[in-house]
Amino acid sequence: MSDDVFSDPDGTREEILAATYRCLRDEGYADLTINAIGEEFEKSPSLVYRHYDSKDDLVIACLGYMLERFERQLVDEAITDPRGRLERFIEWASSDDIPAERRQFLSTLVELRTRAVYDEAYRCYFTRSDEVFVRYVSDMIQAGIDQGRFQECEPDGVAETLVTLLHGAMNRRPTHEGEAWLGDVRDELEAYLEARVYSDSTEGASESDENDRSQL
Amino acid sequence: MSDDVFSDPDGTREEILAATYRCLRDEGYADLTINAIGEEFEKSPSLVYRHYDSKDDLVIACLGYMLERFERQLVDEAITDPRGRLERFIEWASSDDIPAERRQFLSTLVELRTRAVYDEAYRCYFTRSDEVFVRYVSDMIQAGIDQGRFQECEPDGVAETLVTLLHGAMNRRPTHEGEAWLGDVRDELEAYLEARVYSDSTEGASESDENDRSQL
Repeated sequence: MSDDVFSDPDGTREEILAATYRCLRDEGYADLTINAIGEEFEKSPSLVYRHYDSKDDLVIACLGYMLERFERQLVDEAITDPRGRLERFIEWASSDDIPAERRQFLSTLVELRTRAVYDEAYRCYFTRSDEVFVRYVSDMIQAGIDQGRFQECEPDGVAETLVTLLHGAMNRRPTHEGEAWLGDVRDELEAYLEARVYSDSTEGASESDENDRSQL
Repeated sequence: MSDDVFSDPDGTREEILAATYRCLRDEGYADLTINAIGEEFEKSPSLVYRHYDSKDDLVIACLGYMLERFERQLVDEAITDPRGRLERFIEWASSDDIPAERRQFLSTLVELRTRAVYDEAYRCYFTRSDEVFVRYVSDMIQAGIDQGRFQECEPDGVAETLVTLLHGAMNRRPTHEGEAWLGDVRDELEAYLEARVYSDSTEGASESDENDRSQL
Protein backbone atom coordinates (compact mmCIF):
# COMPACT_ATOMS: atom_id res chain seq x y z
CA MET A 1 0.00 0.00 0.00
CA SER A 2 1.53 3.30 -1.04
CA ASP A 3 2.62 5.60 1.77
CA ASP A 4 2.01 8.71 -0.29
CA VAL A 5 -1.62 7.97 -1.09
CA PHE A 6 -2.49 11.43 0.25
CA SER A 7 0.32 13.35 -1.43
CA ASP A 8 -1.98 14.96 -3.97
CA PRO A 9 -5.57 14.97 -2.68
CA ASP A 10 -8.22 15.71 -5.26
CA GLY A 11 -11.41 17.40 -4.08
CA THR A 12 -12.89 18.19 -0.68
CA ARG A 13 -13.45 14.62 0.48
CA GLU A 14 -9.86 13.59 -0.25
CA GLU A 15 -8.52 16.75 1.38
CA ILE A 16 -10.49 16.03 4.56
CA LEU A 17 -9.25 12.43 4.61
CA ALA A 18 -5.68 13.61 3.97
CA ALA A 19 -5.96 15.94 6.98
CA THR A 20 -7.26 13.00 9.05
CA TYR A 21 -4.30 10.89 7.93
CA ARG A 22 -1.78 13.59 8.91
CA CYS A 23 -3.41 14.03 12.33
CA LEU A 24 -3.44 10.27 12.96
CA ARG A 25 0.18 9.96 11.90
CA ASP A 26 1.43 12.92 13.94
CA GLU A 27 -0.76 12.73 17.06
CA GLY A 28 -1.94 9.11 17.31
CA TYR A 29 -5.56 8.16 17.93
CA ALA A 30 -6.15 8.61 21.68
CA ASP A 31 -5.83 12.39 21.86
CA LEU A 32 -7.21 13.06 18.40
CA THR A 33 -10.30 15.28 18.21
CA ILE A 34 -12.56 16.11 15.31
CA ASN A 35 -11.66 19.75 16.08
CA ALA A 36 -7.97 19.06 15.44
CA ILE A 37 -8.84 17.49 12.09
CA GLY A 38 -10.99 20.52 11.26
CA GLU A 39 -8.03 22.78 11.99
CA GLU A 40 -5.67 20.61 9.93
CA PHE A 41 -8.15 20.88 7.05
CA GLU A 42 -7.48 24.58 6.62
CA LYS A 43 -9.96 25.33 3.89
CA SER A 44 -13.09 25.22 6.02
CA PRO A 45 -13.15 23.41 9.37
CA SER A 46 -16.95 23.42 9.47
CA LEU A 47 -17.08 21.28 6.32
CA VAL A 48 -15.59 18.41 8.32
CA TYR A 49 -18.55 18.44 10.72
CA ARG A 50 -20.98 18.63 7.85
CA HIS A 51 -19.64 15.41 6.29
CA TYR A 52 -18.73 13.30 9.32
CA ASP A 53 -20.54 12.72 12.60
CA SER A 54 -17.62 11.67 14.74
CA LYS A 55 -13.89 11.19 14.94
CA ASP A 56 -14.36 7.44 14.40
CA ASP A 57 -16.40 8.02 11.23
CA LEU A 58 -13.52 10.07 9.89
CA VAL A 59 -10.83 7.59 10.92
CA ILE A 60 -12.65 4.65 9.36
CA ALA A 61 -13.35 6.63 6.18
CA CYS A 62 -9.63 7.49 6.01
CA LEU A 63 -8.54 3.85 6.46
CA GLY A 64 -11.18 2.65 4.00
CA TYR A 65 -10.04 5.16 1.40
CA MET A 66 -6.41 3.98 1.68
CA LEU A 67 -7.49 0.36 1.32
CA GLU A 68 -9.66 1.14 -1.72
CA ARG A 69 -6.78 2.93 -3.41
CA PHE A 70 -4.62 -0.15 -2.85
CA GLU A 71 -7.32 -2.44 -4.22
CA ARG A 72 -7.85 -0.28 -7.29
CA GLN A 73 -4.16 -0.61 -8.18
CA LEU A 74 -4.50 -4.39 -8.22
CA VAL A 75 -7.38 -4.67 -10.66
CA ASP A 76 -6.38 -6.08 -14.03
CA GLU A 77 -2.73 -6.03 -13.13
CA ALA A 78 -0.86 -9.05 -14.46
CA ILE A 79 1.47 -10.79 -12.01
CA THR A 80 4.49 -11.30 -14.22
CA ASP A 81 7.03 -11.87 -11.45
CA PRO A 82 5.31 -13.53 -8.47
CA ARG A 83 8.48 -14.17 -6.47
CA GLY A 84 9.82 -10.66 -6.97
CA ARG A 85 6.47 -9.17 -5.98
CA LEU A 86 6.21 -11.39 -2.89
CA GLU A 87 9.74 -10.42 -1.83
CA ARG A 88 8.96 -6.73 -2.22
CA PHE A 89 5.75 -7.10 -0.20
CA ILE A 90 7.69 -8.77 2.63
CA GLU A 91 10.38 -6.08 2.44
CA TRP A 92 7.71 -3.35 2.54
CA ALA A 93 6.01 -4.91 5.57
CA SER A 94 9.10 -5.86 7.57
CA SER A 95 12.05 -3.68 6.57
CA ASP A 96 13.81 -2.06 9.52
CA ASP A 97 14.79 0.87 7.34
CA ILE A 98 11.56 2.85 7.12
CA PRO A 99 10.92 6.59 7.06
CA ALA A 100 10.06 8.19 10.43
CA GLU A 101 6.64 9.33 9.22
CA ARG A 102 5.65 5.82 8.14
CA ARG A 103 6.89 4.44 11.45
CA GLN A 104 4.64 6.93 13.26
CA PHE A 105 1.63 5.90 11.21
CA LEU A 106 2.34 2.20 11.86
CA SER A 107 2.29 2.92 15.61
CA THR A 108 -1.09 4.60 15.21
CA LEU A 109 -2.32 1.54 13.27
CA VAL A 110 -1.50 -0.64 16.30
CA GLU A 111 -3.70 1.65 18.40
CA LEU A 112 -6.50 1.60 15.81
CA ARG A 113 -6.43 -2.18 15.47
CA THR A 114 -7.00 -2.48 19.21
CA ARG A 115 -10.21 -0.44 18.82
CA ALA A 116 -11.52 -3.49 16.94
CA VAL A 117 -11.65 -5.51 20.18
CA TYR A 118 -14.69 -3.54 21.35
CA ASP A 119 -15.88 -1.55 18.32
CA GLU A 120 -17.63 -3.42 15.51
CA ALA A 121 -16.97 -0.77 12.86
CA TYR A 122 -13.22 -1.11 13.37
CA ARG A 123 -13.46 -4.91 13.51
CA CYS A 124 -15.36 -4.86 10.23
CA TYR A 125 -12.69 -2.64 8.63
CA PHE A 126 -9.74 -4.73 9.83
CA THR A 127 -11.43 -7.97 8.78
CA ARG A 128 -11.80 -6.54 5.27
CA SER A 129 -8.25 -5.20 5.30
CA ASP A 130 -6.88 -8.63 6.32
CA GLU A 131 -8.93 -10.23 3.55
CA VAL A 132 -7.53 -7.84 0.94
CA PHE A 133 -3.94 -8.59 1.93
CA VAL A 134 -4.58 -12.34 2.15
CA ARG A 135 -6.08 -12.31 -1.34
CA TYR A 136 -3.19 -10.18 -2.60
CA VAL A 137 -0.64 -12.74 -1.35
CA SER A 138 -2.77 -15.73 -2.30
CA ASP A 139 -3.13 -14.45 -5.89
CA MET A 140 0.66 -14.07 -6.15
CA ILE A 141 1.16 -17.62 -4.97
CA GLN A 142 -1.50 -19.00 -7.29
CA ALA A 143 0.13 -17.14 -10.19
CA GLY A 144 3.49 -18.66 -9.26
CA ILE A 145 1.98 -22.15 -9.23
CA ASP A 146 0.16 -21.56 -12.53
CA GLN A 147 3.41 -20.40 -14.13
CA GLY A 148 5.22 -23.49 -12.84
CA ARG A 149 7.56 -21.32 -10.78
CA PHE A 150 6.15 -22.24 -7.33
CA GLN A 151 5.47 -25.63 -5.76
CA GLU A 152 1.97 -27.03 -5.42
CA CYS A 153 0.98 -25.64 -2.02
CA GLU A 154 -2.07 -24.10 -0.34
CA PRO A 155 -2.15 -20.47 -1.54
CA ASP A 156 -4.75 -19.37 1.03
CA GLY A 157 -3.02 -21.16 3.90
CA VAL A 158 0.37 -19.70 3.03
CA ALA A 159 -1.22 -16.26 2.61
CA GLU A 160 -3.04 -16.38 5.97
CA THR A 161 0.21 -17.43 7.65
CA LEU A 162 2.28 -14.75 5.98
CA VAL A 163 -0.27 -12.04 6.80
CA THR A 164 -0.50 -13.25 10.43
CA LEU A 165 3.30 -13.30 10.80
CA LEU A 166 3.74 -9.84 9.26
CA HIS A 167 0.86 -8.56 11.38
CA GLY A 168 2.63 -9.97 14.45
CA ALA A 169 5.85 -8.23 13.42
CA MET A 170 4.11 -4.90 12.76
CA ASN A 171 2.43 -5.12 16.15
CA ARG A 172 5.58 -6.16 18.02
CA ARG A 173 7.75 -3.39 16.56
CA PRO A 174 6.43 -0.36 18.45
CA THR A 175 5.62 -2.41 21.59
CA HIS A 176 9.04 -4.09 22.09
CA GLU A 177 12.45 -2.49 22.80
CA GLY A 178 14.81 -3.00 19.86
CA GLU A 179 14.36 -4.74 16.51
CA ALA A 180 17.16 -7.33 16.45
CA TRP A 181 14.51 -10.09 16.31
CA LEU A 182 13.14 -8.73 13.00
CA GLY A 183 16.12 -10.00 10.97
CA ASP A 184 15.66 -13.47 12.49
CA VAL A 185 12.01 -13.47 11.47
CA ARG A 186 12.82 -12.41 7.90
CA ASP A 187 15.47 -15.16 7.62
CA GLU A 188 13.09 -17.85 8.88
CA LEU A 189 10.28 -16.59 6.66
CA GLU A 190 12.66 -16.92 3.70
CA ALA A 191 13.55 -20.48 4.79
CA TYR A 192 9.83 -21.33 5.07
CA LEU A 193 9.08 -19.96 1.60
CA GLU A 194 12.07 -21.85 0.14
CA ALA A 195 10.81 -25.08 1.71
CA ARG A 196 7.11 -24.65 1.09
CA VAL A 197 6.52 -22.29 -1.83
CA TYR A 198 9.44 -21.54 -4.15
CA SER A 199 10.58 -24.16 -6.61
CA ASP A 200 14.32 -24.80 -6.93
CA SER A 201 14.17 -23.34 -10.39
CA THR A 202 13.04 -19.95 -9.11
CA GLU A 203 15.93 -19.62 -6.66
CA GLY A 204 17.59 -16.25 -6.95
CA ALA A 205 15.10 -15.11 -9.56
CA SER A 206 13.54 -11.82 -8.72
CA GLU A 207 13.55 -9.74 -11.84
CA SER A 208 11.12 -6.90 -11.42
CA ASP A 209 8.71 -5.22 -13.73
CA GLU A 210 7.39 -1.70 -13.64
CA ASN A 211 3.92 -2.72 -12.51
CA ASP A 212 5.30 -4.53 -9.48
CA ARG A 213 7.59 -1.67 -8.62
CA SER A 214 4.97 1.05 -8.76
CA GLN A 215 2.50 -0.86 -6.70
CA LEU A 216 4.03 -0.67 -3.23
CA MET B 1 1.44 -19.94 31.24
CA SER B 2 -1.18 -21.34 33.56
CA ASP B 3 -4.60 -19.73 33.40
CA ASP B 4 -5.36 -20.51 37.02
CA VAL B 5 -2.31 -18.79 38.45
CA PHE B 6 -4.62 -16.84 40.76
CA SER B 7 -6.89 -19.70 41.79
CA ASP B 8 -5.40 -19.91 45.29
CA PRO B 9 -3.78 -16.59 46.21
CA ASP B 10 -1.49 -16.69 49.22
CA GLY B 11 -1.15 -13.50 51.29
CA THR B 12 -2.27 -9.90 50.83
CA ARG B 13 -0.09 -9.08 47.80
CA GLU B 14 -1.29 -12.10 45.83
CA GLU B 15 -4.91 -11.41 46.78
CA ILE B 16 -4.62 -7.82 45.51
CA LEU B 17 -3.04 -9.03 42.25
CA ALA B 18 -5.73 -11.72 41.89
CA ALA B 19 -8.40 -9.00 42.24
CA THR B 20 -6.57 -6.95 39.59
CA TYR B 21 -6.52 -9.98 37.28
CA ARG B 22 -10.28 -10.58 37.69
CA CYS B 23 -11.06 -6.91 37.01
CA LEU B 24 -8.84 -6.86 33.91
CA ARG B 25 -10.39 -10.06 32.62
CA ASP B 26 -14.01 -9.01 33.26
CA GLU B 27 -13.90 -5.27 32.52
CA GLY B 28 -10.90 -4.73 30.22
CA TYR B 29 -8.33 -2.00 30.76
CA ALA B 30 -9.89 1.22 29.47
CA ASP B 31 -12.65 1.61 32.05
CA LEU B 32 -10.73 -0.01 34.91
CA THR B 33 -10.22 2.14 38.00
CA ILE B 34 -8.09 1.56 41.09
CA ASN B 35 -11.38 1.96 43.02
CA ALA B 36 -12.91 -1.02 41.20
CA ILE B 37 -9.89 -3.13 42.09
CA GLY B 38 -10.19 -1.97 45.71
CA GLU B 39 -13.82 -3.12 45.73
CA GLU B 40 -12.95 -6.45 44.10
CA PHE B 41 -10.34 -6.94 46.84
CA GLU B 42 -12.99 -7.28 49.51
CA LYS B 43 -10.75 -7.60 52.53
CA SER B 44 -9.70 -3.96 52.75
CA PRO B 45 -9.93 -1.64 49.75
CA SER B 46 -7.65 0.94 51.38
CA LEU B 47 -4.78 -1.58 51.43
CA VAL B 48 -4.69 -1.40 47.64
CA TYR B 49 -3.95 2.33 47.74
CA ARG B 50 -1.30 1.81 50.41
CA HIS B 51 0.65 -0.61 48.20
CA TYR B 52 0.15 0.82 44.71
CA ASP B 53 0.21 4.40 43.41
CA SER B 54 -1.82 3.92 40.26
CA LYS B 55 -3.88 1.57 38.18
CA ASP B 56 -0.90 1.04 35.86
CA ASP B 57 1.37 0.09 38.79
CA LEU B 58 -1.16 -2.57 39.72
CA VAL B 59 -1.63 -3.86 36.18
CA ILE B 60 2.11 -4.17 35.56
CA ALA B 61 2.62 -5.86 38.95
CA CYS B 62 -0.14 -8.33 38.03
CA LEU B 63 1.36 -9.12 34.62
CA GLY B 64 4.86 -9.37 36.14
CA TYR B 65 3.63 -11.77 38.80
CA MET B 66 2.06 -14.07 36.19
CA LEU B 67 5.26 -14.06 34.15
CA GLU B 68 7.42 -14.82 37.20
CA ARG B 69 5.20 -17.76 38.12
CA PHE B 70 5.63 -19.11 34.60
CA GLU B 71 9.41 -18.64 34.75
CA ARG B 72 9.68 -20.34 38.15
CA GLN B 73 7.99 -23.44 36.73
CA LEU B 74 10.69 -23.70 34.07
CA VAL B 75 13.72 -23.68 36.37
CA ASP B 76 15.51 -27.02 36.60
CA GLU B 77 12.84 -28.74 34.54
CA ALA B 78 14.28 -31.29 32.13
CA ILE B 79 12.90 -31.19 28.58
CA THR B 80 12.34 -34.89 27.98
CA ASP B 81 9.95 -34.56 25.05
CA PRO B 82 10.80 -31.39 23.07
CA ARG B 83 8.38 -32.04 20.20
CA GLY B 84 5.48 -32.89 22.50
CA ARG B 85 6.12 -29.78 24.55
CA LEU B 86 6.37 -27.56 21.47
CA GLU B 87 3.11 -28.97 20.10
CA ARG B 88 1.34 -28.33 23.42
CA PHE B 89 2.68 -24.76 23.52
CA ILE B 90 1.34 -24.10 20.02
CA GLU B 91 -1.99 -25.70 20.94
CA TRP B 92 -2.19 -23.55 24.10
CA ALA B 93 -1.43 -20.37 22.15
CA SER B 94 -3.59 -20.99 19.08
CA SER B 95 -6.40 -23.43 19.93
CA ASP B 96 -9.83 -22.21 18.88
CA ASP B 97 -11.40 -24.12 21.73
CA ILE B 98 -10.61 -21.95 24.73
CA PRO B 99 -12.66 -21.11 27.84
CA ALA B 100 -14.65 -17.86 27.72
CA GLU B 101 -12.76 -16.37 30.67
CA ARG B 102 -9.38 -16.94 29.05
CA ARG B 103 -10.69 -15.45 25.80
CA GLN B 104 -11.74 -12.34 27.73
CA PHE B 105 -8.31 -12.01 29.32
CA LEU B 106 -6.61 -12.42 25.92
CA SER B 107 -8.70 -9.52 24.59
CA THR B 108 -7.54 -7.40 27.51
CA LEU B 109 -3.93 -8.39 26.76
CA VAL B 110 -4.32 -6.93 23.25
CA GLU B 111 -5.40 -3.65 24.87
CA LEU B 112 -2.51 -3.75 27.35
CA ARG B 113 0.08 -4.50 24.67
CA THR B 114 -1.00 -1.36 22.82
CA ARG B 115 -0.21 0.70 25.94
CA ALA B 116 3.42 -0.21 25.18
CA VAL B 117 3.41 2.05 22.11
CA TYR B 118 3.46 5.15 24.31
CA ASP B 119 4.24 3.91 27.85
CA GLU B 120 7.76 2.75 28.64
CA ALA B 121 6.78 0.63 31.66
CA TYR B 122 4.46 -1.48 29.50
CA ARG B 123 7.05 -1.66 26.71
CA CYS B 124 9.62 -2.85 29.22
CA TYR B 125 7.22 -5.54 30.51
CA PHE B 126 6.25 -6.84 27.06
CA THR B 127 9.88 -6.89 25.90
CA ARG B 128 10.71 -9.09 28.90
CA SER B 129 7.64 -11.24 28.32
CA ASP B 130 8.59 -11.78 24.65
CA GLU B 131 12.12 -12.69 25.75
CA VAL B 132 10.83 -15.27 28.24
CA PHE B 133 8.67 -16.97 25.60
CA VAL B 134 11.44 -16.84 22.97
CA ARG B 135 13.88 -18.46 25.42
CA TYR B 136 11.24 -21.04 26.36
CA VAL B 137 10.82 -22.08 22.71
CA SER B 138 14.52 -21.74 21.89
CA ASP B 139 15.45 -24.04 24.81
CA MET B 140 13.00 -26.67 23.57
CA ILE B 141 14.50 -26.53 20.10
CA GLN B 142 18.07 -26.67 21.39
CA ALA B 143 17.11 -29.69 23.53
CA GLY B 144 15.62 -31.41 20.47
CA ILE B 145 18.83 -30.77 18.49
CA ASP B 146 21.02 -31.97 21.39
CA GLN B 147 18.94 -35.15 21.64
CA GLY B 148 19.30 -35.75 17.90
CA ARG B 149 15.53 -35.48 17.44
CA PHE B 150 15.48 -32.10 15.64
CA GLN B 151 17.44 -30.87 12.64
CA GLU B 152 20.38 -28.49 12.95
CA CYS B 153 18.60 -25.14 12.72
CA GLU B 154 18.72 -21.70 14.36
CA PRO B 155 16.89 -22.13 17.70
CA ASP B 156 16.66 -18.37 18.37
CA GLY B 157 15.53 -17.58 14.83
CA VAL B 158 12.85 -20.28 14.88
CA ALA B 159 11.75 -19.15 18.35
CA GLU B 160 11.49 -15.46 17.38
CA THR B 161 9.45 -16.46 14.32
CA LEU B 162 7.13 -18.76 16.24
CA VAL B 163 6.55 -16.15 18.97
CA THR B 164 5.92 -13.43 16.34
CA LEU B 165 3.45 -15.66 14.46
CA LEU B 166 1.59 -16.69 17.62
CA HIS B 167 1.58 -13.06 18.78
CA GLY B 168 0.08 -12.10 15.42
CA ALA B 169 -2.58 -14.79 15.81
CA MET B 170 -3.42 -13.74 19.39
CA ASN B 171 -3.72 -10.13 18.26
CA ARG B 172 -5.79 -10.94 15.16
CA ARG B 173 -8.31 -13.10 17.02
CA PRO B 174 -10.32 -10.49 18.88
CA THR B 175 -9.85 -7.86 16.14
CA HIS B 176 -11.06 -9.93 13.14
CA GLU B 177 -14.51 -11.43 12.49
CA GLY B 178 -14.34 -15.25 12.55
CA GLU B 179 -11.46 -17.65 13.14
CA ALA B 180 -11.45 -19.85 10.01
CA TRP B 181 -7.95 -18.55 9.20
CA LEU B 182 -6.57 -19.93 12.46
CA GLY B 183 -6.66 -23.55 11.24
CA ASP B 184 -4.77 -22.53 8.07
CA VAL B 185 -2.08 -20.89 10.19
CA ARG B 186 -1.72 -23.96 12.41
CA ASP B 187 -1.43 -26.24 9.34
CA GLU B 188 1.25 -24.07 7.74
CA LEU B 189 3.13 -23.73 11.03
CA GLU B 190 3.17 -27.52 11.24
CA ALA B 191 4.49 -27.71 7.64
CA TYR B 192 7.21 -25.17 8.50
CA LEU B 193 8.29 -27.10 11.59
CA GLU B 194 8.33 -30.36 9.61
CA ALA B 195 10.54 -28.74 6.96
CA ARG B 196 12.81 -26.73 9.19
CA VAL B 197 12.90 -28.24 12.69
CA TYR B 198 11.61 -31.80 13.14
CA SER B 199 13.72 -34.71 11.92
CA ASP B 200 11.98 -37.47 9.98
CA SER B 201 12.67 -39.76 12.88
CA THR B 202 10.56 -37.68 15.26
CA GLU B 203 7.51 -37.72 12.99
CA GLY B 204 4.41 -38.62 14.93
CA ALA B 205 6.34 -38.84 18.19
CA SER B 206 4.74 -36.80 20.88
CA GLU B 207 4.72 -38.85 24.02
CA SER B 208 4.14 -36.62 27.00
CA ASP B 209 5.56 -36.56 30.46
CA GLU B 210 4.01 -35.22 33.62
CA ASN B 211 6.32 -32.21 33.80
CA ASP B 212 5.32 -31.08 30.36
CA ARG B 213 1.67 -31.60 31.05
CA SER B 214 1.57 -29.66 34.30
CA GLN B 215 3.45 -26.74 32.91
CA LEU B 216 0.91 -25.15 30.62
